[in-house]
Amino acid sequence: MFYESVQQMKKQLGQVEKWLEMATAHAEQKKFDQNLYLGFRLAPDQLPLSAQVGIACDTAKLGAARLTGKDAPAHADNQTTVAELHARLQSVQQWLGALTAKDFEGAATRTITTPRWEGKTMTGQDYFLEHVQPNFGFHVAHTYALLRHNGVPVGKKDYLGALTQTAPKT
Amino acid sequence: MFYESVQQMKKQLGQVEKWLEMATAHAEQKKFDQNLYLGFRLAPDQLPLSAQVGIACDTAKLGAARLTGKDAPAHADNQTTVAELHARLQSVQQWLGALTAKDFEGAATRTITTPRWEGKTMTGQDYFLEHVQPNFGFHVAHTYALLRHNGVPVGKKDYLGALTQTAPKT
Repeated sequence: MFYESVQQMKKQLGQVEKWLEMATAHAEQKKFDQNLYLGFRLAPDQLPLSAQVGIACDTAKLGAARLTGKDAPAHADNQTTVAELHARLQSVQQWLGALTAKDFEGAATRTITTPRWEGKTMTGQDYFLEHVQPNFGFHVAHTYALLRHNGVPVGKKDYLGALTQTAPKT
Repeated sequence: MFYESVQQMKKQLGQVEKWLEMATAHAEQKKFDQNLYLGFRLAPDQLPLSAQVGIACDTAKLGAARLTGKDAPAHADNQTTVAELHARLQSVQQWLGALTAKDFEGAATRTITTPRWEGKTMTGQDYFLEHVQPNFGFHVAHTYALLRHNGVPVGKKDYLGALTQTAPKT
């Protein structure tokens, strides 16, 4: 389910864009600069919204890159506007959307490492389940929490987005 | 990967217990009632910490129950103390831990519905990827965010917990 899980991450990054659109509308209604949102934090020593979005993007992108062996596009951590966050989110969604199920063949048993692990390794499956998915969920949820905490009327339906449901038989 | 993903949820509920222990220590150090944490909210119209923990528990428990066809233990939403949250978290971890990989055979193609869906259905795989996993991540991350926002010194390592890593060959 690596491919399907990564496409779910792509979908969630699209939801982040919808929350940012709601933040823009909220800022316009309240007459403040929408780009203030990028600097908001839930704690003084926690990363601000711009970094929460950036790390969510990188977690999905680098996770998929390591599981497939494909090179991901580079993104600098220099966004200062909502528009620049949209551009980064769109770039990552586009790259994730171009991956195929075939790209993830053998992903479960790949040997994964990252620059921070000092030579230690994880299997692709452990890396994805223990590191990529919880990290991704963390930063997406913190983005949402920061907006909600600062007045943006996002709700659970905005979080999940559309569900693939079948109507009851009549 | 349903079984492995559900065991990862069990692990994360164990991490929530560690954050609550840190919250208890923080409250003792600052000399306030640790049970105040259960009522804290990130927004006036968002659910408090007690409900974030309860829904995280229920999302994992009901998700696994629907995917396996097994009955899950019932838990009332009536916790008012950190100790009661620990008890609920432990009960769910115990139940999840007793599931086996075999219990999840055929989970991907099961027809899933919930009381809220008015007869609509999802496949087990879509339900798990689009509903259970993001919902679980949402409520676990909101629990963490509420504690962090209110002074508990939790960090990303506390969020992820131990990783299944292999040491480099020497």
